[in-house]
Amino acid sequence: MGLNVYLSGEIHTDWREQIIDGAQGLDITFTGPVTDHDASDDCGVAILGAESDKFWHDHKGAKLNAIRTRKGIADADVVVVRFGEKYKQWNAAFDAGYAAGLGKSIIVLHGPDHQHALKEVDAAALAVAEEPRQVVEILRYVLTGKLPD
Amino acid sequence: MGLNVYLSGEIHTDWREQIIDGAQGLDITFTGPVTDHDASDDCGVAILGAESDKFWHDHKGAKLNAIRTRKGIADADVVVVRFGEKYKQWNAAFDAGYAAGLGKSIIVLHGPDHQHALKEVDAAALAVAEEPRQVVEILRYVLTGKLPD
Amino acid sequence: MGLNVYLSGEIHTDWREQIIDGAQGLDITFTGPVTDHDASDDCGVAILGAESDKFWHDHKGAKLNAIRTRKGIADADVVVVRFGEKYKQWNAAFDAGYAAGLGKSIIVLHGPDHQHALKEVDAAALAVAEEPRQVVEILRYVLTGKLPD
Amino acid sequence: MGLNVYLSGEIHTDWREQIIDGAQGLDITFTGPVTDHDASDDCGVAILGAESDKFWHDHKGAKLNAIRTRKGIADADVVVVRFGEKYKQWNAAFDAGYAAGLGKSIIVLHGPDHQHALKEVDAAALAVAEEPRQVVEILRYVLTGKLPD
Amino acid sequence: MGLNVYLSGEIHTDWREQIIDGAQGLDITFTGPVTDHDASDDCGVAILGAESDKFWHDHKGAKLNAIRTRKGIADADVVVVRFGEKYKQWNAAFDAGYAAGLGKSIIVLHGPDHQHALKEVDAAALAVAEEPRQVVEILRYVLTGKLPD
Amino acid sequence: MGLNVYLSGEIHTDWREQIIDGAQGLDITFTGPVTDHDASDDCGVAILGAESDKFWHDHKGAKLNAIRTRKGIADADVVVVRFGEKYKQWNAAFDAGYAAGLGKSIIVLHGPDHQHALKEVDAAALAVAEEPRQVVEILRYVLTGKLPD
Amino acid sequence: MGLNVYLSGEIHTDWREQIIDGAQGLDITFTGPVTDHDASDDCGVAILGAESDKFWHDHKGAKLNAIRTRKGIADADVVVVRFGEKYKQWNAAFDAGYAAGLGKSIIVLHGPDHQHALKEVDAAALAVAEEPRQVVEILRYVLTGKLPD
Amino acid sequence: MGLNVYLSGEIHTDWREQIIDGAQGLDITFTGPVTDHDASDDCGVAILGAESDKFWHDHKGAKLNAIRTRKGIADADVVVVRFGEKYKQWNAAFDAGYAAGLGKSIIVLHGPDHQHALKEVDAAALAVAEEPRQVVEILRYVLTGKLPD
Repeated sequence: MGLNVYLSGEIHTDWREQIIDGAQGLDITFTGPVTDHDASDDCGVAILGAESDKFWHDHKGAKLNAIRTRKGIADADVVVVRFGEKYKQWNAAFDAGYAAGLGKSIIVLHGPDHQHALKEVDAAALAVAEEPRQVVEILRYVLTGKLPD
Repeated sequence: MGLNVYLSGEIHTDWREQIIDGAQGLDITFTGPVTDHDASDDCGVAILGAESDKFWHDHKGAKLNAIRTRKGIADADVVVVRFGEKYKQWNAAFDAGYAAGLGKSIIVLHGPDHQHALKEVDAAALAVAEEPRQVVEILRYVLTGKLPD
Repeated sequence: MGLNVYLSGEIHTDWREQIIDGAQGLDITFTGPVTDHDASDDCGVAILGAESDKFWHDHKGAKLNAIRTRKGIADADVVVVRFGEKYKQWNAAFDAGYAAGLGKSIIVLHGPDHQHALKEVDAAALAVAEEPRQVVEILRYVLTGKLPD
Repeated sequence: MGLNVYLSGEIHTDWREQIIDGAQGLDITFTGPVTDHDASDDCGVAILGAESDKFWHDHKGAKLNAIRTRKGIADADVVVVRFGEKYKQWNAAFDAGYAAGLGKSIIVLHGPDHQHALKEVDAAALAVAEEPRQVVEILRYVLTGKLPD
Repeated sequence: MGLNVYLSGEIHTDWREQIIDGAQGLDITFTGPVTDHDASDDCGVAILGAESDKFWHDHKGAKLNAIRTRKGIADADVVVVRFGEKYKQWNAAFDAGYAAGLGKSIIVLHGPDHQHALKEVDAAALAVAEEPRQVVEILRYVLTGKLPD
Repeated sequence: MGLNVYLSGEIHTDWREQIIDGAQGLDITFTGPVTDHDASDDCGVAILGAESDKFWHDHKGAKLNAIRTRKGIADADVVVVRFGEKYKQWNAAFDAGYAAGLGKSIIVLHGPDHQHALKEVDAAALAVAEEPRQVVEILRYVLTGKLPD
Repeated sequence: MGLNVYLSGEIHTDWREQIIDGAQGLDITFTGPVTDHDASDDCGVAILGAESDKFWHDHKGAKLNAIRTRKGIADADVVVVRFGEKYKQWNAAFDAGYAAGLGKSIIVLHGPDHQHALKEVDAAALAVAEEPRQVVEILRYVLTGKLPD
Repeated sequence: MGLNVYLSGEIHTDWREQIIDGAQGLDITFTGPVTDHDASDDCGVAILGAESDKFWHDHKGAKLNAIRTRKGIADADVVVVRFGEKYKQWNAAFDAGYAAGLGKSIIVLHGPDHQHALKEVDAAALAVAEEPRQVVEILRYVLTGKLPD
């Protein structure tokens, strides 16, 4: 058994690298969104032409990014959704909902202070973790049956 | 043609009433979440027994609410998702994602200041409105072909 | 047995009325797009605000119309797609493809001069008719087993 | 992440080759219809026997071609639909609708003069491009996160 | 609980009437194919125009009949498939396969001499009956829990 | 909003009646299996003929019952699964799994002594109750937003 | 593009070998039922124990065979169904219906004398061939766009 | 043709090893749950933190295990469910129901004394075996058409 794991959400810390590094040796293919913030914001107009209205500037970019995120989530066995300390992060919650609508196994990763605000997201998950290390331990257990020492 | 419309999101203003009132005379069945904030928070423990840990207190409640919200969204032709001025509102973004995962027609309702933060949600929608009145006008147009005067 | 029938395509002649009139007495619910050409073109900006760029003007309108057309086709047992003599009518062919993707029974209605250009659409249909009268006769036969005299 | 991309539509210019050449080095599998116009028109009768009636001549061919096009679109992550300057091209619009019915990510490729006539197709797309080069840039961005210089 | 029951197969005896009569008083909606043999054979050409080639004559008719049979089977909770003593009855076996592909509950109705030849069809069924009376008893039991005296 | 609720599992106490009585006045349609134990065991041979082998005796009956249980679960919004104190009750756990496979909202009803043995079933549920009264309270809350006094 | 092709139906002539031989060099994976007639008839009792009743003897075998046929058809892009000159061949028609229920591309292969009896099966197909050679030519055309000389 | 086979149920005997050993040389990928009983019970709290309440201790573990079991069953062509002599084994019956809800081919493996209690599970299966050896023989027959000597 191998796993496809999509890493959704916060892009300002190195949590993805921690998980990918920690999971070395496991049969896992990781995917995720474009994490270059500027490229992600401007991709639409950079490729398809400038927009004078900021709404359409954002709209064109968000749709290009959707080609990648939909594919990644649709192909995933497990979707990990990380909520950081800052920003609205509505796209992370949207991804969690989208994954739930497709019946994916969801792991939510957030600090204890977000617990009440994320209760609906957590309720749709099979695990709620606080640290990237725990996500690695879950993935290792799922694939090998081995618990951390 | 009639419509089932689910009204998701913010529960602190009377936007649902505005839409339902404005849509009188149209063949629409409206549903939505429980909007009594205290009941929504405490339903799990009130019915199934107290929890000493706030996480499980919330968890039991969020799952009971999910019985209603999943049914409402699954039966809906159109899901309207309202983002207000305050709070994280991750459940609203989650509902939008869930509706997108099920292929529902989505109308997002929010003020212009949220435009950038909601670009991924807006990109999955068939309409982005700022006022409840506009949602009513959309529903009337969809059902009758009549535009506002 | 009753039928939901969606009438897609050309909006410049009275073919819909001919079918609906001819089918009186049969247990059929007919739906279709908004056929007021100006309303259909301008609904987006009329409700959600003007756009300086014609592309987005059209885009907003086309998405509002999609709320209706997707619902109508998704609920339909039979989708009738009419191609007239003029215009590109790509939306009609798009509707036919969308209906095929959903596995709907399709009846195509067009004159003999379009036969070669529509061969892929016709190949996805269960009937290819030239006259609205024939569509009525098909629907009557499907529901009652009675052939025209 | 790799992508399956189906290239639908116009067969009289070298837009497919431009995209495939431009995308060299990316993990993409391209598919598309048979682009030999004569073979595509006559395949049915050439293999299954002549028809005296042109309708059935075309019908047999269109159905054989459907074996390929359905497979290609069903397996695709992204469907690119190109509308050229000439002909009705209803099969292109049909493919776009079929892809939309299956929930595929769609990129439409057409010149600005077709903008109004294609508004319903564009409304179902995640990107509307004018040049094959832009399609390549989209695919590169989706797979690598890199924008054009 | 009510049931939609589709009665497929042999059209030369009164088995449908026996079941419908026997089931009076139960909350069942029965549907089935057109059982007028001549109308069923000729519907295509009668409505859509004559064909010189018998294959296309049959083809046009079979497709019109498919509008009805697909709708009936898709809406059914239970599909009863009757095999009589004579003829190939491949359409009956096709309907059984189609119903199995859609996950319907299937009841097969045939005499003991067909037992070996129908073993694959029987293996996909939830009941194999020899008499219409038994089908009525099954439907009554399913709806009311009452066994025959 | 109304609900279809399927009541699966234990048939030796009056828990179904308690729920149905308690839910009077709510817009709920209740369904469930045949609860006449003898009829349920013998329905197959009573209708379709005796079997000398007990396995096939049971098999014919279990398949007839499946016509009812599949229909009931497939149509349900909520599946309540009750585990009593005695017997293996594998059919109850099977129903819970079947409901989970279809994505239904599940409420499990069992005493605290079964908690460990049912942990996989409980993990797939949106609520775990100990008393029929709690199920009624959940259904009332889901439909009306009202909590018990 | 490669194809998975399931070869269903008649097992008394070498039509499968003709197709597989003719298709050498094409990127096709062929599957099909067990064609050893005795093994296919007796597999159930040979593995799971004898039955005194011929019905259950056949039933056990037919279900084991269904493990293979369902898998083969579910994985297929194209299902070829061959009807020979003799026997009822209801399993072939059942396979065709099952494939149609799953939305597979179907090629029917039969002689002209079966044309009327198979009209419903043919109407669900994308091609109706008389010779294995034609099936090879179709598959080659679908994969390469090349017509026979 | 190759097969993915999920081995669900009893974890106290070596039946999985018997099947895997017996099937050597066949193109089968076997998966199954974590069979380390202690790890399976405690994985949730070992990774995600201790719980004072045994219910939540179990709940967290059962959900982690669900990531593996859902993936395994969803990917399987055949689900083998083994019921041993002891314990409630409700998770085995749940897995069988879940597999049935997804339309998987099911083989049940149990001794004759469980025959009546498992009749609903057996009725959803394509084979009921008593010995692991028989499961191997089934898998060999399905893949190769060869019966045991």
